[in-house]
Amino acid sequence: MNSLSLSIIGFGNVGRGVAEVLYTKMPHFKKKYGINIKVVSITDTSATIWDQEAINLREAIETKNHFGSLKFWGNEYEVYKLDPMEVVKEIDADVIIDVTNDKNASKWHLEALKRGKGVVTSNKPPVVFDYKELVDLANSKNLPYLFEATVMAGTPIINLLKEEILADSVKRISGVFNGTTTFILTSIETGMTFKEALKQAQTAGIAERDPSNDLKGIDAAYKATILHHLAFYPIDFKEVHIEGIENLSEEEIREAKKEGTPFRLVATVEEGKVEIKPKKVYENGPLAVSGTSNVAVIETDLLGELMLKGSGAGIKETASGVVGDIIRAAVSIYKYL
Amino acid sequence: MNSLSLSIIGFGNVGRGVAEVLYTKMPHFKKKYGINIKVVSITDTSATIWDQEAINLREAIETKNHFGSLKFWGNEYEVYKLDPMEVVKEIDADVIIDVTNDKNASKWHLEALKRGKGVVTSNKPPVVFDYKELVDLANSKNLPYLFEATVMAGTPIINLLKEEILADSVKRISGVFNGTTTFILTSIETGMTFKEALKQAQTAGIAERDPSNDLKGIDAAYKATILHHLAFYPIDFKEVHIEGIENLSEEEIREAKKEGTPFRLVATVEEGKVEIKPKKVYENGPLAVSGTSNVAVIETDLLGELMLKGSGAGIKETASGVVGDIIRAAVSIYKYL
Repeated sequence: MNSLSLSIIGFGNVGRGVAEVLYTKMPHFKKKYGINIKVVSITDTSATIWDQEAINLREAIETKNHFGSLKFWGNEYEVYKLDPMEVVKEIDADVIIDVTNDKNASKWHLEALKRGKGVVTSNKPPVVFDYKELVDLANSKNLPYLFEATVMAGTPIINLLKEEILADSVKRISGVFNGTTTFILTSIETGMTFKEALKQAQTAGIAERDPSNDLKGIDAAYKATILHHLAFYPIDFKEVHIEGIENLSEEEIREAKKEGTPFRLVATVEEGKVEIKPKKVYENGPLAVSGTSNVAVIETDLLGELMLKGSGAGIKETASGVVGDIIRAAVSIYKYL
Repeated sequence: MNSLSLSIIGFGNVGRGVAEVLYTKMPHFKKKYGINIKVVSITDTSATIWDQEAINLREAIETKNHFGSLKFWGNEYEVYKLDPMEVVKEIDADVIIDVTNDKNASKWHLEALKRGKGVVTSNKPPVVFDYKELVDLANSKNLPYLFEATVMAGTPIINLLKEEILADSVKRISGVFNGTTTFILTSIETGMTFKEALKQAQTAGIAERDPSNDLKGIDAAYKATILHHLAFYPIDFKEVHIEGIENLSEEEIREAKKEGTPFRLVATVEEGKVEIKPKKVYENGPLAVSGTSNVAVIETDLLGELMLKGSGAGIKETASGVVGDIIRAAVSIYKYL
């Protein structure tokens, strides 16, 4: 059985989640899909560990968990100073897995594709800002460029739009794509102040230390833009209308809830139009999600309304999307091996 | 551009819906997918019309609508006495589209696959009873055997289980897959008798003249069995536990609704187990669908709960599934043309 070799770039929560799923479920994947996958390098902000034979993922996860950094990888192994671009250029791998949040990662993706490597990513900015260039290059070289985990974690909204409902023309997608704002809004609804709600979200690991991307609607706008690229055509992020939840007052939020139409940060995607805006939604309607649930309501000419709801965050849930794409890449590349 | 040629078997509501979508959206499909599709024969219970150059679908639909039967197809055309098996054997086509309800259609499907033809079907019994034989044969000959429209019309539950969530292991699928029973239950909840509710459903074209397959849970059991085949392994239909709604009393139905837990005909699919049973569901929970909406809640190891909700019936909605599969077949067969 041929092996598909991976370079993992980024070893935070998502990277470790991906390694954990690969480690735990590899025997299952071998049996079910007839593929074999090995990780030949992992890069965190401190170092790159590299073993062309295959890295022991269990040991890599434990090193990171116990020592906080891959540079403490055991004595018998080599630790390298390679940064992500050097990894792409110097390490022999079939597919690059970008699970960082690096805004300038497009250049790694482009370099990888130029060198005949596939790309799987959970990192939004490259897909938002350089979609056409990346996808065109990947298509011209018959390489996978996959990004299921960028929207709704592993809930398969991306591949549903790409591979399913092929006879339908999408008219509109409405959705709630940011769990942090939902969490904060629902906490305020039950009586907390904005500050308390934010703090609770941060303590629970839902909001980041700098929560502005979530609160200002940027994160939701990234996701909605990616859906527009897919459902219609690549749109310029500058054209996206973005309004976050930071200007809602606590009173407004509680009042709306009392009236049975709580606020949610709603994304609307139509041909040529992407809008992020706090909107009052019906309490029993599809958009009134809670917790870190995300939902997409897809309206098409034939199916009418199609609703996909699932986790929009979480380590295992995001790993589901990344590893699903790795399997998809393996199956497609195997045809040519 | 090569053409993919189709033989359509069955020209009731679904068959005409498929013809309508193919006719209306073909320019769009050509542009979007680079494929060309022509229908070379259509078979109804009275006759087969056949034109190797391509049938004018508009005229075929109008003939059927105005005269009730394809045997009245215009003078300048040939009308043939071919039955479905003869169509499969004698007409040159790349893919057979079975949109009948014929319980013995497996033999056409097998014959088509043996002759190197792909199969797209909305007809449940062949997929329920002969799944393994059909899929094994199709795989061994690298031919498409596609059946998205058998469950939840065009709502892409089948292809989601086949092509998405590749890293996940399904633990359970719960769902409501029969719109007729939902319609009747909700009508009874609002005060109608069982008889009145059934009559209304029949008048609205939701229930068939012989509604026993719906009321006894057979239709839902067919669908749940297909999901079991896909999510786990081919299961014997005899092992399926089936309980319909016909033994519920009107009082029970209304009482349950009053308590906030209305009855729905719920399907539960777990490894080695398929069960159809009227169950009380939470009014605001995912299974409390209304109208002809269907819903599937898929529980997996990584994603937790994933919910897919959409139309489970309707002409356009079913055509969406069949035509989506035709496009999928065209794209896969084009690689070999």
